[in-house]
Amino acid sequence: MTSFEVRSIGHVESPLNERDAAPKQGFEGAPDAWLVFATEVSAALSDLAVGDEIWVLSWLHRGQRDVLAVHPRDDLRNPLTGVFSTRSQDRPNPIGLHRVRIGAVEGLRILVHDLEALHGTPILDIKPVLRGGR
Amino acid sequence: MTSFEVRSIGHVESPLNERDAAPKQGFEGAPDAWLVFATEVSAALSDLAVGDEIWVLSWLHRGQRDVLAVHPRDDLRNPLTGVFSTRSQDRPNPIGLHRVRIGAVEGLRILVHDLEALHGTPILDIKPVLRGGR
Repeated sequence: MTSFEVRSIGHVESPLNERDAAPKQGFEGAPDAWLVFATEVSAALSDLAVGDEIWVLSWLHRGQRDVLAVHPRDDLRNPLTGVFSTRSQDRPNPIGLHRVRIGAVEGLRILVHDLEALHGTPILDIKPVLRGGR
Repeated sequence: MTSFEVRSIGHVESPLNERDAAPKQGFEGAPDAWLVFATEVSAALSDLAVGDEIWVLSWLHRGQRDVLAVHPRDDLRNPLTGVFSTRSQDRPNPIGLHRVRIGAVEGLRILVHDLEALHGTPILDIKPVLRGGR
């Protein structure tokens, strides 16, 4: 399989600092967190503003890449399910996808609401949420 | 900046085969396309079904990674905008995010509707769309 290199463009500062502390999905109630960006990407950030809804693409650094099926929500009562039908952090390319709203912008630091990512999680990309939630 | 390796888990088969043929956003009307997966990830696919809405994460292999601001939609009348506020393929980590619905499943080949990705685009991940479009 062909491979490519992705680079961390920043990281998450969050009160969530245990693997098991992360809620499985953002809407169950996740804390505010700061996205802290590398100076090198400051020009890419320059139009992000308070109130914007964004997608945060993260690197789920604790994900197990050789796991292809899981019991959703780590609940053994749920049948073993192919990871492409789940949001498990265990998957061949452990990229996280989080929809959040910007609460504050302070230079290279951006506050977002309801982010279900652990403290220290690397950030790969930020995209605007388009109409229709895309 | 820390880097990580992502691997292509498959590729797109699409009638879109020119850089400029790709519409800028899926909802403007994109064609049906096939997602063709590597045998190695077949267990991860096993619960995807016709009618499912999924996120396709792709590798935008023609993206320029050193471009941090663009004129949206390649229209010079649009002001230069930081790429994290756009869906430009030009960005530090050129990962594409596409929301599509599954039209057919044939083993390692999955037909999806309205995919704005060029023929040959590598696929990195598939995730279910959660309620609320997340």
